[in-house]
Parts: sequence; C-alpha cells; structure tokens
Amino acid sequence: MNYCSHCGGSLRFDIPSGDDRSRYICDACQTIFYENPKMVVGCIPEWKDQILLCRRAIEPRYGMWTLPAGFLENGETVSEGAIRETYEEAGTRVEIIAPYMMLNLSFISQIYFMFRARMPAPDYEAGQESLDVRLFREEDIPWKDIAFSAISSTLKQYFDDRTQGGRFSFHIGDVQKV
Amino acid sequence: MNYCSHCGGSLRFDIPSGDDRSRYICDACQTIFYENPKMVVGCIPEWKDQILLCRRAIEPRYGMWTLPAGFLENGETVSEGAIRETYEEAGTRVEIIAPYMMLNLSFISQIYFMFRARMPAPDYEAGQESLDVRLFREEDIPWKDIAFSAISSTLKQYFDDRTQGGRFSFHIGDVQKV
Repeated sequence: MNYCSHCGGSLRFDIPSGDDRSRYICDACQTIFYENPKMVVGCIPEWKDQILLCRRAIEPRYGMWTLPAGFLENGETVSEGAIRETYEEAGTRVEIIAPYMMLNLSFISQIYFMFRARMPAPDYEAGQESLDVRLFREEDIPWKDIAFSAISSTLKQYFDDRTQGGRFSFHIGDVQKV
Repeated sequence: MNYCSHCGGSLRFDIPSGDDRSRYICDACQTIFYENPKMVVGCIPEWKDQILLCRRAIEPRYGMWTLPAGFLENGETVSEGAIRETYEEAGTRVEIIAPYMMLNLSFISQIYFMFRARMPAPDYEAGQESLDVRLFREEDIPWKDIAFSAISSTLKQYFDDRTQGGRFSFHIGDVQKV
C-alpha cells in the first residue's frame, strides 16, 4: 500500500496513537487502514458414502483436487458463501448439514470454515474454476494430489469421524506453513 | 474508495471480466480490490456461576455492557484474537473452553465468533476501551443495557444452554439489522 484510497495522499506505515500495531496511515485525511484476515468457506458435499471433489483449473495447484471453497463475500452469511462456492465450482446445489471444521491459517491470515453438506441428487458439473468434478469413496481419495493441507486435514478428520461411528462434532485446528 | 492504493490511479467500480460482482478496479495498474467480511472474536469469561461483562468507554453504545470482543488481526488464530481482546478490554487472561457461537451480521459484513472461556481467578480490570468490568450472575445481567444484539443473542443462548443442564453445543445464527 502506497497511496490513500480515499484522498490519494501518501501513506506511512506506523503505529497510530492509542494502538499497539502498525497500520497504513494517511496524514492528509487522517484515515487509518485496517487489514484483517479473510474467511474461506466451503463444503464437504456428500452423496451416500461418497464425497465430491473438484480438480482445480486455476493456479495455485492447477490440476490438483480440492473441496469446493472460496472467499466469503461482503453481505453473505457463512453458509450462503459455502453453498455459492459449491455451486460455482462443482455445479451442485447442496443443503447444509452442520458446521464441521474451522482451520486457522494464520501465516497467510486466512480462516477456513467448512460445512458438511448433502447433495439432493448426484448431479454436478465442473464450473469455470474446475477441470473436473467427481464423487469419491474413501478408498479412492487421491491423497497425494490434494491441493492444500487445509483440505487434507479436513478430509482426514472427516473420514476419522465417519470411521468412528459417524459422530461428527465441530473441530478447530491450525494449519502450519509447510 | 477513490484511488488505487498501489499506484495512485483513479478507481472505477465495475464487474471485472470473469467475475459476477462489482469491485474497485484500477485501469492504470490492473489491480482489483476485493473487500471481504471481517471477523469479530471474543469470549464469555466464566468465573464459577458468574460471567464477566465490560461497560463500553467508546462509541458506538458508550456506557452500555458487552462481552469482550473485537476484530481479529492478521497473523492471529481465532482463539488468540479472542484471548487478546479479553485481556485488552477486561484485564483477565482466560483459558479457552470451547467454541460456542458464530453469528452472521451480513448487513454489516461481520462474522462474530465467540468462545466460552475460563477465568483462572476473579482478577480483572477495565482496559482502555472499558469504563467498568464486572462479574454478573444470570439474574443480574443488565439485559436492557446490552450494547449489541449479537451479544444479547449470545448471552441468551448461553443461559438457555446452562439452564438445560449445561450442554453447550456449538451454535450458528443470524442477527438482523434492527
């Protein structure tokens, strides 16, 4: 950040009076710019004993598999965002079952929030950001080709819970920088 | 937003190619500015059968009571943010018990995320943003003087759960514009 988005003045990076961390400050119009973590919201879409994964058509991790998820937009609820992303990337209109996992990716200031969700029918198609979308049984999950460790962690927890009698509680975890 | 924070060029508000909603776009350097919801994180600090509330020393809702909470900062986990806010506003170092409630305030693009937390001792003091900090029993909660409906909703759910045998599960809800 170099310029004030309000008045166009030059910014300096300094601790504002009464604060305890550095922010971008405009001396011309006194605006302080706060930067905060972003939420990434998504689903584990279930169809019977299978779950739906998308193969990425965009960087990073082009060609690798992931759960449908993306940045929460202004004006949305967390579940609305998760349903929208699932539709955009996987062409399926899911019904939310329950919140399932929140993951802190503090090294990139992102919070993942994933729901379990029901597919009303095995209908899906690759959206603009997907090369392919497919239903997988647990034994067919392409573990070596999962795009992000947040997604591997979510899937691993999910199948662990399912193996142990399907008691899906809400989990919180941290993902470290690889 | 009027100017590009990167190059100082003028911004226009329009739908970028391949997108489906309007963003601020800089034609000079091609930067697109995405704006996303912010997380507000906080705690219900418990000491025996009492909980800790703060009386606000800042606007909005100066003089009204609230739970300690504030904006999650870059680089923090959600629980780190909640612990920090509780220390800043109420001078007490809590231990997180469990995630308790997430509330969508989509009309202002905020997501509240509140934890139940344990006070190791009944030690607390008003921070810079509080006029007063006090422990309250359920029957003494100043319901008419609670600062925000997100906080009233959290407290109401909390005492409902406590009355029903203390089975505190994780809740999600929406708060509508008053």
